Amino acid sequence: MTQNVKGYESIKPLLYPESVAVLGASENKYKIGNIQLQALIDGKFQGEIFPIHPTADQIAGLKSYSSLTDVPNSIDLVIFCIAYDQIKNGLIECAEKKVKAAIIFASGFSEAGEEGKKLQLELAEFAKLNNIRLLGPNCVGLVNTSNGLIGTFSSSVLWVPMTGKRGVGYVSQSGAFGVLTYMAAAQHGVNFNYFISSGNEMDTTLEDYIEYMVNDDEIEVISGYIEGAKNPEKLKLAALKALEKRKPIVLMKTGRSDAGSRAAASHTGALAGSDKIYDAFFRQNGIIRVEDSEDVIAFAKLFNPNRLPKGRNTAIITSSGGRGINEADRCESYGLNIVELSEKTKTEMRKSLPDYASVSNPIDLTAAASFANTEFFLDTLKVLVNSPEVDNIILTEFPHSWDEHNKYFQEFMTVAKNSDKFICFFPFPLGDITYPKTTPILVENEIAVVSGALNPVSALAQLVEYGQFLDRYQPNEMEEVFAHENVVDLLTPNATLSESEASEILARYGIPTTQRFVVNSQEEAIERAQQVGFPVVMKIDSQHIPHKTEADAIRLNISSEDEVIQAFDEIMSNARNYNPTAILNGVSVQEMLPKGTEIIIGAKCDEVFGPVIMAGLGGIFVEVFKDISFKVAPLSRKDAYALLEELQAKTILDGARGQAPTDKEAIVDVLLRVSQLMMDHKDKIKELDINPLIVYEKGIKAVDAMIVIAEENIKKELIGG
Amino acid sequence: MTQNVKGYESIKPLLYPESVAVLGASENKYKIGNIQLQALIDGKFQGEIFPIHPTADQIAGLKSYSSLTDVPNSIDLVIFCIAYDQIKNGLIECAEKKVKAAIIFASGFSEAGEEGKKLQLELAEFAKLNNIRLLGPNCVGLVNTSNGLIGTFSSSVLWVPMTGKRGVGYVSQSGAFGVLTYMAAAQHGVNFNYFISSGNEMDTTLEDYIEYMVNDDEIEVISGYIEGAKNPEKLKLAALKALEKRKPIVLMKTGRSDAGSRAAASHTGALAGSDKIYDAFFRQNGIIRVEDSEDVIAFAKLFNPNRLPKGRNTAIITSSGGRGINEADRCESYGLNIVELSEKTKTEMRKSLPDYASVSNPIDLTAAASFANTEFFLDTLKVLVNSPEVDNIILTEFPHSWDEHNKYFQEFMTVAKNSDKFICFFPFPLGDITYPKTTPILVENEIAVVSGALNPVSALAQLVEYGQFLDRYQPNEMEEVFAHENVVDLLTPNATLSESEASEILARYGIPTTQRFVVNSQEEAIERAQQVGFPVVMKIDSQHIPHKTEADAIRLNISSEDEVIQAFDEIMSNARNYNPTAILNGVSVQEMLPKGTEIIIGAKCDEVFGPVIMAGLGGIFVEVFKDISFKVAPLSRKDAYALLEELQAKTILDGARGQAPTDKEAIVDVLLRVSQLMMDHKDKIKELDINPLIVYEKGIKAVDAMIVIAEENIKKELIGG
Repeated sequence: MTQNVKGYESIKPLLYPESVAVLGASENKYKIGNIQLQALIDGKFQGEIFPIHPTADQIAGLKSYSSLTDVPNSIDLVIFCIAYDQIKNGLIECAEKKVKAAIIFASGFSEAGEEGKKLQLELAEFAKLNNIRLLGPNCVGLVNTSNGLIGTFSSSVLWVPMTGKRGVGYVSQSGAFGVLTYMAAAQHGVNFNYFISSGNEMDTTLEDYIEYMVNDDEIEVISGYIEGAKNPEKLKLAALKALEKRKPIVLMKTGRSDAGSRAAASHTGALAGSDKIYDAFFRQNGIIRVEDSEDVIAFAKLFNPNRLPKGRNTAIITSSGGRGINEADRCESYGLNIVELSEKTKTEMRKSLPDYASVSNPIDLTAAASFANTEFFLDTLKVLVNSPEVDNIILTEFPHSWDEHNKYFQEFMTVAKNSDKFICFFPFPLGDITYPKTTPILVENEIAVVSGALNPVSALAQLVEYGQFLDRYQPNEMEEVFAHENVVDLLTPNATLSESEASEILARYGIPTTQRFVVNSQEEAIERAQQVGFPVVMKIDSQHIPHKTEADAIRLNISSEDEVIQAFDEIMSNARNYNPTAILNGVSVQEMLPKGTEIIIGAKCDEVFGPVIMAGLGGIFVEVFKDISFKVAPLSRKDAYALLEELQAKTILDGARGQAPTDKEAIVDVLLRVSQLMMDHKDKIKELDINPLIVYEKGIKAVDAMIVIAEENIKKELIGG
Repeated sequence: MTQNVKGYESIKPLLYPESVAVLGASENKYKIGNIQLQALIDGKFQGEIFPIHPTADQIAGLKSYSSLTDVPNSIDLVIFCIAYDQIKNGLIECAEKKVKAAIIFASGFSEAGEEGKKLQLELAEFAKLNNIRLLGPNCVGLVNTSNGLIGTFSSSVLWVPMTGKRGVGYVSQSGAFGVLTYMAAAQHGVNFNYFISSGNEMDTTLEDYIEYMVNDDEIEVISGYIEGAKNPEKLKLAALKALEKRKPIVLMKTGRSDAGSRAAASHTGALAGSDKIYDAFFRQNGIIRVEDSEDVIAFAKLFNPNRLPKGRNTAIITSSGGRGINEADRCESYGLNIVELSEKTKTEMRKSLPDYASVSNPIDLTAAASFANTEFFLDTLKVLVNSPEVDNIILTEFPHSWDEHNKYFQEFMTVAKNSDKFICFFPFPLGDITYPKTTPILVENEIAVVSGALNPVSALAQLVEYGQFLDRYQPNEMEEVFAHENVVDLLTPNATLSESEASEILARYGIPTTQRFVVNSQEEAIERAQQVGFPVVMKIDSQHIPHKTEADAIRLNISSEDEVIQAFDEIMSNARNYNPTAILNGVSVQEMLPKGTEIIIGAKCDEVFGPVIMAGLGGIFVEVFKDISFKVAPLSRKDAYALLEELQAKTILDGARGQAPTDKEAIVDVLLRVSQLMMDHKDKIKELDINPLIVYEKGIKAVDAMIVIAEENIKKELIGG
C-alpha cells in the first residue's frame, strides 16, 4: 500500500501545481502556445504562470523567460506546447529544473508506429528516473475547475464555464469523446471538478487518476471513459477503497461489440480484454458500467451521498397517462420494480384524489393536476412517503404554476425533505420548456431533476444496484485457502495435458474426480474395471487426442469382462488410426457415474485481467443459449455464489422441473479450488475446462478435464531463473 | 372493402373541412372557446370560421351566430368547446344542420365511470345514425398544418410553428404524450402534417386515421402512439396497403411491462392484449414498433422514399476514435453489422489517408481531419461509395470549416448524391454546437442529419429491417386451405376436452397423432396393446384430469400383457382416488414413440387479436428460457417458417450438436393446420396445446393435446341461433 499512497500523491502537481510554465508560449494567437497561456490567465489560475519563449520579454502581459532554468522560482508543472521531436530536450530541461510534472499534448508517439513507440518508451523511462510525472502524450490535457488550472489547448473545453455543480471528477482515454462529454455535462448543469484526457498514458494512466480521486475529498463521484485497463490491479484496489468511502466509480467502457473492440485495440494500443470479462470485473468490484456519456451525466446528477435508494420498488406520479406508462415500461426494462401499491396506500390516496384519477401505479393524477388541482401532487406525495412498499418516487411532471411562495410547494418540499424515499423528477426532453421555475429549489432540497434526454431511469436503476452492492459489501473478505498437493511436476510447458494428468491436477487440489486407472493391457483393464466396479467407462488417454468422441475412442456403460476386452482393443486401434503420431498413454478405465446435472467450469488466463473463472450448465445451455458467466480470480465465496446466481438457468440448480436442488455448496467449493489453482499457477495454466462436472443432490464429480499449459511464460520463468 | 373506402373518406371533413363552427366560442381569452377560435385565426385556416355564442354579435373580429342552425352556410366541422353535459344537445343541433364531423374535447365519459360510459355509447350511436364522424371525447383535438386547421385548445400545441418538413402524420391515443411528441418533433425540425389526439375513440379510432393516411398522398411516414388496438383487422389491412405503397407505419406501443399494461388497460379502457402478441402482429404486418417519442422523430428524419438502405453492412467514418467505437457498439447492439472492410477498400483508403489514421471500420480519420485535413472525409467517402461490402455510411462528424463554396464540400455532395449508399450524419448531442453550417444543404442532398439525442442508430436499424421486409413482401400471399373433417360434434361448450377428444380434433384436421384406443377393461387393453404393438403407453382419459402425471395416472414403456393388466388397474384406481367425481372415459392405450425433438405448439384466442399461434421447443427451452414465439392467425407459410426462425433455439431444429436436422416442413404443416382449426372455430376454441409434438428427421407426431372450449361465445351463439 505504501507505494500506492506515494503514487497518488505524486500526481498532485499535475492537478494542483503552485506554478506552471508554458513551454513554447507564443504571441501568435492561433498557436497552441498562446491559446494555452491565455487559458491559464482567463481561468484565473491560482498560482504563478511562466511563459517560456526563446526571445520574447513578455507574452500576454506576463514576463517571459528564455528557458525553464531561467525562471528564478521553482516550477511544479510544465505544459509542453511543442512538437513531438522537441519533447526530449524539454524533459531534460525539466529534470535540471527539478520540475515535478508535465503535460504533453503532442502526437507522433505510440499511436504513430514503431519509431514513435520507441521514443515514447525512452521518454517515459527518463521521466521516471527524474521523478517527473507525465500526462499524455497525444492528449487534450486537463482542467481543474477548483483552482482555475486549464491545462489544454482545446477550444471546445475553453467554452465550458468554470462554475456549476462540483464533486464530479472525469478522466477519459479518448480526448475527443472526453471533451464532448465534458461539454454535454456542462450543458446539463454538471461541471466536472476535474477533466483529464489521459492520451497514450506513457506515465500516468486512467487508474492513477481514479486512485487519486478516491483519496480526494473534493470528489463525490468518479467518472470516466475507458477503452482498455492498463493496470487492473490498481483499478481494483481503488474500486475497493471507493466502496469503503461510498464513492461511486462510473465508467463508460466501449468496445462491447466485436467491431468496437477491434477499434479499441488499435486505438489506444491497450489490449482490450474480452468485453464480458470487463463486465465481470466491474460487477465484482462495484464499478458502475454505463453505455453512454448521457449515463455518466445522469448518474452524476442523481447521486447524493446522503440519500441512496433503498431498493427497486418504484412508484410513478404522473399527470399524463401516456408518460406514466412509458416511464413504467422503461423502469421495468432496466430492472426497477413498478410496485403494486397496497390497498392501504390506495385507500389513502382515494381520500384526496378524484374518481377519474388512477391510484394504481403508475399513479395518474390526470391533466387536471397540472392546471386546476396542483394539490394532487402534494396529496399523493404525502401518502407515498408513508407507504413502506415504496422505495423510490419518480415524478414525470411538476406543477409549473407553483412558485416558492406557493403553500403547496412549500409543504411538498418539507414532506420530501423529511422523507427517506428517493424522490426525483424526470422531465420530458423538451429543453427548458419542461422545467418549472422552481427547479433550482427542488435540486437544493435533494430532489434530483434529470431530463429524460439523459435516460435517468437507467441511471436510477444503476444507483439502486450500487446501493445494494454497498449494503452487501464487506471489506477484507476472507480469501479461503485450501490444502492441496504440489502439481508443478505435471505442468509440462506448451502442452495440452492428457485427461488423466488434468484430472490428477484437479484431484490434488481437492476437487472430486471419477476414480480412474490408465491401463496398457486387456488384463490390466479387466482388473481395474473390477476394482472400479461395473459398469465402467473406457476412453483413450492421450494429450494428443483431446476430442475422444471424434476419434471414436470412448466407450460408455461397459458391463462385462468381454466388453472390456473388446473396448480396449477398439479404443487403442481407433486412436492409432485417428492420429498415428500421437503418444498414447493407454486406456483410462473409469467409474460410470449416475445421471446428475451437468455443469461446465472453465478458466483462462486473460491477458489483461489474469485468471478468469467461467461457469455454465452443460449441453444446450452453453451451446445454444451461451448461458455462461465470468468472474475474475481470485474468487471469494460470495463471488462464487454470484457466478451461479448470474446464470439464466440458475433455476435448474435450485431444482426446477420437480427435481431436487443440486449441491450448490459443492459447486462453489470446486469454483474456489479452481480459482486457487489458477492463482497459484497463473503464469503456467493458460486454459482449463472441467466438462462435464456432474452435480448431485449431495456431492459433485469432475468427469472430464482439459488443461493447456502456456509456452511463453514458461520461457520467461526459465530465463528469470 | 367498400365499407373501408367509405370509412376513410368519411373522416376527411375532420381534417379538411371547408367550414368550421366553434360551438361555445367565448370572448373571455382564458376560456377554451376563445383559445380555440383564436387558434383557427392565427393558423390562417383556409376556410370559413363561424363562432357560435348565444348572444354575442362578433367574437375575435368574426361574425357570431346564436346557434348552428342560424349559420346561413353549410358547416363541415363543429368543434365543441362545451362541457360534457351539453354535448348531447350540441349533437342534436349538428344533426339538424347536417354537419359532417365534430371534435369533442370534454372529459367525463368512458374514462369517468359507468354513467359516462353509458352517455358515450348513446352519443356514439346518435352520431352514427346521423352520419356525423366524431373525434374524441376526452382528447386534445387535431392539427392539420397544410390547411391551417388548428382544432385544439392546447396551449403547448399552439407554440409549435406551422412550417417545416412535411410528409409525416401522427396520431396518438394519449393526448399529453402526443402533444409532447409533436413539440419535440418540431424542436428537431420535423413538423407533422397532421397531429391527431384520438381520445376515448367513441367513433373514429387510431386505425381510421392510419387508414386515412395510407390513402393520403401528402403522407410519406405514418406515425403514432398506441396503447391498445380497437380494430386490429382494420390496422392489418391498412398496414398491408401501406406496404404496397412503401409507406412506413411507425408506432410507439406502450404497456410492454406488466405494470405498463396494467395502466394501459385502465387508461384507455381498451383491452391491451399481451405485449408479445402486439410484437408479433406488428412484425407480421411490417409495422415498425418503437420504444420512444425520439424513435418516431429519428425514423421520420431518416426515412427517404427514394433511398432505402440495402442491408445491414455499415461503415462508420469518424474523426474521434472514441465516438467511432461508441457508435460501432451501438450499431451492433441494434443489429447493424460493422462490416469488415475488404483489403481492396482498405488499400484504396490508404492511398490518401496518413499512417496514423485507421482504415479499419470504424474508420478513424483522427482529429486532423476535422481541422487541417478535411479532405480526408471526401477521400474516404469516394472509396466507400465504390465498396460493394458497404450498404450504409455513418458520419459521426462533419467538417465545420466547409461552406457551400468549399470545393471539397461540393465534391462530397456530388459523390453522395450519385451513390446508392445510405449516407447519414449523426452529430453528438450538444445542441446546435455540433451542427455544421452546411447542415441544411446536406439534408437537401438526401444525407440525413439526425442528432445523437434521438438514438438514430436504432432508427437506422429499423429502417434497414423495414427495407428488408419490403423486399420480401408479397401482396396477396396465398392462404392455404387443408382438407379436414368436421369437428363441431367435439366442441363441448365450457369444457376442457379429454386428451382423446383433443387428439381426435387434431387428427380430423390432418395432424399426425399417436395411434390410441380408449379401453374400459383389462381384456380390451391387452387386445389394443397388441394391435398398437409393444411397448405402449397407457394413461387415463378424462377431461377432468388434465394433469395425468400429478394423478399418477400414466405408465410408459409397457412391454407385456401382465404389465398391461397391472397398469390398467393402477391407472383407474389412482385416477378415482385423485378425483372421485371425475368422469373417466377409460384408459388410453397408445403407441410409444421413439425419441425425437420435442416441440410445443399452442394457440389461444386473444381478446384483441383473435386466434394467436405459439411455438417453442419443449422442456427447459420453454420453462427456463421462455424461448417461444407468436404469430397472429391466419398464418401464411412464410409466417410459419418465421415463427420457427424467431426461436433462439432454432439451431436445434436445424440439427445442432451433431444431430440430423428435423423435418421443419412437417412442423410448418402442423402450424398451418392449427391456424386453420383456430380460424374455423375462433368463437369456440379458447386454448389449445400440443405438448409434446415430437419431430423426427422425417415426420412428426402429436403425443398429447389439450383443448379448452369457451363458454361465453357459445352462449352468444346459442342466443344468436
